[in-house]
Amino acid sequence: FLYPSSPQEEEDSAMQNIVTEKRAEESHRQDSADLLIFILLLTLTILTIWLFKHRRFRFLHETGLAMIYGLIVGVILRYAVHVPRDVGTASMGCFVNISPATLLVNISGKFYEYTLKGEISANLVNDVQDNEMLRKVTFDPEVFFNILLPPIIFHAGYSLKRRHFFRNMGSILAYAFVGTVISCFVIGLLMYGCVMLMKQFSQLGGDFFFTDCLFYGAIVSATDPVTVLAIFHELQVDADMYALLFGESVLNDAVAVVLSSSIVAYQPQGDNSHTFEVMALLKSFGMFLGVFSGSFSLGVATGVVTALISFFTKLRDFQLLETALFFLMSWSTFLLAEACGFTGVVAVLFCGITQAHYTFNNLSPESQDRTKQLFELLNFLAENFIFSYMGLTLFTFQNHIFNPMFIVGAFLAVFVGRAANIYPLSFLLNLGRRYKIRSNFQHMMMFAGLRGAMTFALSIRDTATFARQMMFSTNLLVVFFTVWVCGGGTTQMLSCQRIRYGFPNEADLLLCVCLNRVGVDSDQDNSMGLADGSERRSTKQESAWLFRIWYNFDHNYLKPILTHSGPPLTTTLPPCCGPVARLLTSPQAIENECQLKDDDSDLILTDGDINLSYGDITVSTDAMGAHTNSGRSFSGTATSDDLDRELAYGDHELVMRGTRLVLPMDDSEPPFSDSIRNLRM
Amino acid sequence: FLYPSSPQEEEDSAMQNIVTEKRAEESHRQDSADLLIFILLLTLTILTIWLFKHRRFRFLHETGLAMIYGLIVGVILRYAVHVPRDVGTASMGCFVNISPATLLVNISGKFYEYTLKGEISANLVNDVQDNEMLRKVTFDPEVFFNILLPPIIFHAGYSLKRRHFFRNMGSILAYAFVGTVISCFVIGLLMYGCVMLMKQFSQLGGDFFFTDCLFYGAIVSATDPVTVLAIFHELQVDADMYALLFGESVLNDAVAVVLSSSIVAYQPQGDNSHTFEVMALLKSFGMFLGVFSGSFSLGVATGVVTALISFFTKLRDFQLLETALFFLMSWSTFLLAEACGFTGVVAVLFCGITQAHYTFNNLSPESQDRTKQLFELLNFLAENFIFSYMGLTLFTFQNHIFNPMFIVGAFLAVFVGRAANIYPLSFLLNLGRRYKIRSNFQHMMMFAGLRGAMTFALSIRDTATFARQMMFSTNLLVVFFTVWVCGGGTTQMLSCQRIRYGFPNEADLLLCVCLNRVGVDSDQDNSMGLADGSERRSTKQESAWLFRIWYNFDHNYLKPILTHSGPPLTTTLPPCCGPVARLLTSPQAIENECQLKDDDSDLILTDGDINLSYGDITVSTDAMGAHTNSGRSFSGTATSDDLDRELAYGDHELVMRGTRLVLPMDDSEPPFSDSIRNLRM
Repeated sequence: FLYPSSPQEEEDSAMQNIVTEKRAEESHRQDSADLLIFILLLTLTILTIWLFKHRRFRFLHETGLAMIYGLIVGVILRYAVHVPRDVGTASMGCFVNISPATLLVNISGKFYEYTLKGEISANLVNDVQDNEMLRKVTFDPEVFFNILLPPIIFHAGYSLKRRHFFRNMGSILAYAFVGTVISCFVIGLLMYGCVMLMKQFSQLGGDFFFTDCLFYGAIVSATDPVTVLAIFHELQVDADMYALLFGESVLNDAVAVVLSSSIVAYQPQGDNSHTFEVMALLKSFGMFLGVFSGSFSLGVATGVVTALISFFTKLRDFQLLETALFFLMSWSTFLLAEACGFTGVVAVLFCGITQAHYTFNNLSPESQDRTKQLFELLNFLAENFIFSYMGLTLFTFQNHIFNPMFIVGAFLAVFVGRAANIYPLSFLLNLGRRYKIRSNFQHMMMFAGLRGAMTFALSIRDTATFARQMMFSTNLLVVFFTVWVCGGGTTQMLSCQRIRYGFPNEADLLLCVCLNRVGVDSDQDNSMGLADGSERRSTKQESAWLFRIWYNFDHNYLKPILTHSGPPLTTTLPPCCGPVARLLTSPQAIENECQLKDDDSDLILTDGDINLSYGDITVSTDAMGAHTNSGRSFSGTATSDDLDRELAYGDHELVMRGTRLVLPMDDSEPPFSDSIRNLRM
Repeated sequence: FLYPSSPQEEEDSAMQNIVTEKRAEESHRQDSADLLIFILLLTLTILTIWLFKHRRFRFLHETGLAMIYGLIVGVILRYAVHVPRDVGTASMGCFVNISPATLLVNISGKFYEYTLKGEISANLVNDVQDNEMLRKVTFDPEVFFNILLPPIIFHAGYSLKRRHFFRNMGSILAYAFVGTVISCFVIGLLMYGCVMLMKQFSQLGGDFFFTDCLFYGAIVSATDPVTVLAIFHELQVDADMYALLFGESVLNDAVAVVLSSSIVAYQPQGDNSHTFEVMALLKSFGMFLGVFSGSFSLGVATGVVTALISFFTKLRDFQLLETALFFLMSWSTFLLAEACGFTGVVAVLFCGITQAHYTFNNLSPESQDRTKQLFELLNFLAENFIFSYMGLTLFTFQNHIFNPMFIVGAFLAVFVGRAANIYPLSFLLNLGRRYKIRSNFQHMMMFAGLRGAMTFALSIRDTATFARQMMFSTNLLVVFFTVWVCGGGTTQMLSCQRIRYGFPNEADLLLCVCLNRVGVDSDQDNSMGLADGSERRSTKQESAWLFRIWYNFDHNYLKPILTHSGPPLTTTLPPCCGPVARLLTSPQAIENECQLKDDDSDLILTDGDINLSYGDITVSTDAMGAHTNSGRSFSGTATSDDLDRELAYGDHELVMRGTRLVLPMDDSEPPFSDSIRNLRM
């Protein structure tokens, strides 16, 4: 086994390789240990959540808990752990004009490649060596935006309660677009005043331009649906309120992301880059529209492509392939949008909504479960990871700038901004709505404006300048305060505002609570007749004026083309298009017409007929003959009841599984409130 | 909206920030596009797999397909796509002795941080700028080891057919440990001969030491269970053969990983680092034992901890939390092992086996499905990603060294190495086994020795030196050949060797095929009595001598302590330990004793009794009284039939779901062959 000896220089090279390998191994070990900290944090969070749920303790949501654990670990890392100085850092001078992305360094004859990690402010250069440990547990900020946020946002889109969402679409869009812009500018202006004041008192340690103020307004306007909605969900709050708040929070995030990037893109030409310039403003505005609509289209497009693939292939026979395809297509939306220069997070949101609306109907039941469970898990892990990282970063982030005046100003501005968003808009919307947004409802929306993962991800994305560092530190406090105080106080607030179950009068509330307590099943509701159609009718009219056209188009053409669940095209297209219709209609859709395996057939209610069926039992008798007896009427123009019913199915589907066993009073609300509403006709 | 103008230097700094941001954005876009390529590749693979499965086309496995698509994209990227030279790379000289891990570069007054990416061989320095695009699609090799391999290996452990695995444990361990070491040394020696020959003919362009040869032997000895086993699974090959081959492949990988790292660690002291030295050899051997046993213990430990957590908490009421905990604990095994300097992949394998054996029994049925489906999906994605990357890298990797002599030598060595592993070991094992490994069985094992993901990941991990680059290029070809030729020819080989269903004589084979063709259900087997207990008895005796002690311990103490499924400790512990037993016994276990909700009760067979039940129907009458009538006998010392039955349950569970609908003749084998064997008694 003897090998002839090699020359000395090879020895050296081999030894040097070993040293390099050793160092890489050391660094890998350290990375593993850092990640392990977070995994153990999450494990701890899960166990504590279980204990809380087990004991019905609801004052602290899991995300708030994750933050507390993060804080504790942050304190330990900061003050208790001391690691030896790392010798692997060298400082060198260089007189290139610009910082290259890749650096080739010739070290004693060997070339090593280095990649740019980021700029370090001059006063921190000496700290770099000291705080290797703390810097190690600091993730690349882009991780949040590119890995952790997408599943959260996709899950939000995928689990949107579509019926209530579409019914309140007008209000949701108003809150999301107009509201966020109002909030952004109000906060921006207030913060500008605050910054001016700080300058007067010489409290400002660096630059803070008006664009920075607006940017702050944009990132802090993104409200988080997580905490409050989890509680809403457990407490069975009125579905319309839930949809309004959830829809607003979700779209809010999308608007805030695009708005903040548009504000960053505001770059006036000429000498002074912080003056007002119409051209730059228009360019920013155009960019906002372009990026938003581009992301929207991309998201919808990949959703539609997925629906088409699952429609034309019989992939449903192979659930693993089906789930994998669904996952990959949804992920590719994000990548595609990012590669095109749009905003991946926004694209993913609309992709999620499209997938839920079309593709979901084409999936096999098993894949429906699988995809929901997969994204539920990813969402849970990502969310708790972000929140525990938030807690940790309060102590481990190196460049915190806590300025008391700025912080007080920010809290005030956030409060005023939310108020300026909710109250005036609700007043204006109530002028047009038949089903009013009541004032306790409005207070609740005001209260529920938590800041969370999105605000954090947007703040940590860029912490290079003084202004951004101060924003980041302040935002951390805003998130902590809103999640702990507002999130923790939701139960109290709800009972104080008496909007549990959202019924207008005490008697209804009482009835509802009673029924819910005894675990009423949806089938049993049939026996009770409450004759009051006013609420239902007003809802009908509200949704009618805005979405009838879209709904008819969707129901008659898009659904049949993209899914197995609509009426066959042959019945909805004009007779002249017969051949095209037959070509595009799958055999299954025609089968559906006969066998009534349609996904709407679970919930059958025919206009002007109080006999109704729910679930599996069918009790309906109507005037449309035996054929449509227990099916939907395949008429060309659908009624708005059809719309309600159609959109309702998916909701139940999404609600009934998932967390059914979480709490005894859980998840029985949507069928219940439906039935009540239906019975009132 | 006017802001007072700021000094000129701030302008510059702002402009420079913008330039840096733009560059980062550009790079991010490029990354997204690169990842998108792979996602689309996987999507294409999924669609084609579906088409193949749909058309019952079995000559090409999905991994082979992924490689082909990877090759095509590689060719396109290499020859068709031209990207403009990237200007973001600068070269600079530096006279430090050693390459630091972090570099602080002072560029015109600003400090930038750079991190070490790796060494670049001197002759490629000029290419670096040219081939930015190709280098971009090259992932960090550690990605494979730290992100893609763990879910694959965990899935293998989690879905191991435990009954057959434990019954053939002795043989599997022999093949995995002795076999891999034999294979490693045989290949190493042959390659050393080959290299010597190449030196004679001056065909060698660089150093290739004996340790390199051994290292090559170790990495190429890792066989891949994927391709062949997928086909086996679809074709319903004999369960023992499946277990033998699967167990061997899986453990093989673990041994090869630790072996290769031990060989790398062989560093003789003194002047000449490539001589033979006893101390260094012993150190390497000690390292092998230490790392392997350390990884094993860690994996088992976290599995046990997870089992205990799920045993003592009522986490099963909250499936999401349960699944998340399971996922996080399994992941933390990997990180913990890596942080401790052990091998994460090996730890994850044993963690998977432990989770399947203990924790799985404590999970709620929904979480059992969820975890299986989750890891099935992760495994599928990771596997196909690796194989498509393999195809791509044949054209995009920059430092390929294809040496015809070395390649021919390697193919020969791989063949001889496998033969030297299988045939002598099988002969020796057959001396001890009552249930012989037949020769067609051995040929099949020889043929099924594919090289796959593990060999690739080990090869690409380090491609710094000439020897490693040549190994990598050669291994790519070995993988391609074995996956396409051996993988594609499995169906032919199986029918040629007539080991389908693994029955010894023609009549049985015929019977079995007939039953299978008509879709016989396991319940219906009861009506047929085949009276031939020889095979069963020999199996019993084989498993008896090795595992009776372990099994008794596991069954009587570990299972009751760690899961809800064993007999209560109060019945298995001696009476003197009464209080301790009562303390450790969950109320559920005592309930189990009465209600017989035990997971073994699905498959009931009592010794010396030909009436048996399968699935839901119970037809057994035995001598042990009404209490144990449809349950297991809770005696302190279990029989080896108990062992068989106990281990069998998990298998069915894992097999029956999952891919049940994949093919009409799919997945009915394990219950079937079981029943046949049982009926022969």
